[in-house]
Amino acid sequence: MAVYTDVPEDALVAFVEGYDIGAVLSFKGIAEGVENTNYFLHTERGSYILTLYEKRVREGDLPFFLGLMEHLSTRGIVCPLPVRDRRGEALGRLAGRPAAIATFLEGLSIRRPTAKRCGALGEALARLHEAGRDFPLRRENALSLPGWRPLLHQAAAQADTVSPGLAARTQAELDRLEASWPTDLPAGVIHADLFVDNVFFIGEDVSGIIDFYFACNDLLAYDLAICLNAWCFEQDGSYNVTKSRALIAGYERVRRLEPAEVAALPILCRGAALRFLLTRLVDWLNVPEGAFVRPKDPLEYDRKLAFHRRAASAADYGLDR
Amino acid sequence: MAVYTDVPEDALVAFVEGYDIGAVLSFKGIAEGVENTNYFLHTERGSYILTLYEKRVREGDLPFFLGLMEHLSTRGIVCPLPVRDRRGEALGRLAGRPAAIATFLEGLSIRRPTAKRCGALGEALARLHEAGRDFPLRRENALSLPGWRPLLHQAAAQADTVSPGLAARTQAELDRLEASWPTDLPAGVIHADLFVDNVFFIGEDVSGIIDFYFACNDLLAYDLAICLNAWCFEQDGSYNVTKSRALIAGYERVRRLEPAEVAALPILCRGAALRFLLTRLVDWLNVPEGAFVRPKDPLEYDRKLAFHRRAASAADYGLDR
Repeated sequence: MAVYTDVPEDALVAFVEGYDIGAVLSFKGIAEGVENTNYFLHTERGSYILTLYEKRVREGDLPFFLGLMEHLSTRGIVCPLPVRDRRGEALGRLAGRPAAIATFLEGLSIRRPTAKRCGALGEALARLHEAGRDFPLRRENALSLPGWRPLLHQAAAQADTVSPGLAARTQAELDRLEASWPTDLPAGVIHADLFVDNVFFIGEDVSGIIDFYFACNDLLAYDLAICLNAWCFEQDGSYNVTKSRALIAGYERVRRLEPAEVAALPILCRGAALRFLLTRLVDWLNVPEGAFVRPKDPLEYDRKLAFHRRAASAADYGLDR
Repeated sequence: MAVYTDVPEDALVAFVEGYDIGAVLSFKGIAEGVENTNYFLHTERGSYILTLYEKRVREGDLPFFLGLMEHLSTRGIVCPLPVRDRRGEALGRLAGRPAAIATFLEGLSIRRPTAKRCGALGEALARLHEAGRDFPLRRENALSLPGWRPLLHQAAAQADTVSPGLAARTQAELDRLEASWPTDLPAGVIHADLFVDNVFFIGEDVSGIIDFYFACNDLLAYDLAICLNAWCFEQDGSYNVTKSRALIAGYERVRRLEPAEVAALPILCRGAALRFLLTRLVDWLNVPEGAFVRPKDPLEYDRKLAFHRRAASAADYGLDR
């Protein structure tokens, strides 16, 4: 939620002249995206988002992310479509940063997803998985199972200052997940960060999916588990099984889960909760002096993990078969 | 440059339903304006800016500001036009704050004004002064001469921690200004904060003037002096008399300065510099713990003041007559 890199107007005008999108009419920094700087850009040809990639995004990953958005867009997924410049390049450089222009998506970022919207999100997620099947590039998930232990090492010594017993709890959880993590489930391109603020709605319909900067190759059902964590818990920590059932049913209207995926759902949800617990915990313990962005509460995911630990089967998520 | 107040999507939708501007299509917090929270709002009917007024703006002043923008808009000044809701009100309430919707202005906020743009700004300023002549509401300038001594009292004890001798320098300047401040010059509605970031350009033309939240009744030529301070100094502190001449000439293409205004120009420029020196100094010495907004450098205006102190007449500003 910040503009990290300031773009002087003359540099912007020169940059936009490299594209066939007409002259700049307006240009405003917007409070969207935590990792990058985003500007709303209106030209004679239409509305766009200009993104400057900040240090947390590896430059070598950008062809994967931009290529994926282009791939998905051309297959009917409403996501930002990177605009290629006059030389055919989607990735440029502006104000010392890698930069890209993509189409602007209408729609509202919502705060409280209804069950109906969870259903729409489930459908959109499955469509994204289907559309990604033939995407030729690959990107390993740096924040999947093998990445969790290094995160725990970083945080373990100080974890109990955040909540008593947190280090031991997280350690035990990770041991358990390492022993039982599924490997032979359907895999493909996943979004991996499909939180409520990365999905736009018009009314009850999904009008756009943004922020593909964690997208990678991993288990498809793990992406569903990330969404169940992000969309189906209420503010008071309770799990809303009506929303969960709607989300899974929406997903299955497009792509039916295989029996092995259904069986693995509780463990995948535990893994997804642990992943966000760990990254939030590391961020929480490493807030830079004078930081603009308040870190997110890691304990929210500690509480979600406790719910998943008690789940016996997919039936606890509203999936009965 | 911050979004201080978060607006949940359902509250926004309900608020916009009170206006005849169609349904909301998109809504994004923008990094514009230091005092208030601004959102870019796109509806079926067009593009708007939604402003939530934060604590630094007095609620009782809002009818003056909104009324002025409406008054100027209908007289051909390109400034945000407040949209009245279905009950005919320009001022509403959203997320616990006074809130207003105004038309979106195209154009770019520039960093480095050229002489040509200074000329365009001068013309626009004079047009604003002419258009404001018959505006019926009044608002005293709380930051004019009588307001400066209380600011100095707040800052005097600590001023020398910012720069040695600053307290005595500022004190002497204020004494001098109090003894010689002009009172019988043409007065009217002034913008009073027409800095570079409050003026939009398309190419070399002014496409819009924003941020009327310091507008008030005061000497018209004092507004010109504020602009000379804000637009005509280079980064290295030198005064660019070419820009200054262009700005004044642009102003005079629309409204010719009276002899008494010409004679008073150096003292008005000193006053304008002292006003921003004092408010910046108070802000500098009172940065709240954990503040998001970095205060602006007061010494920039201490240096500008030194230039004005050496000016013998309006000729030093490129106005020879």
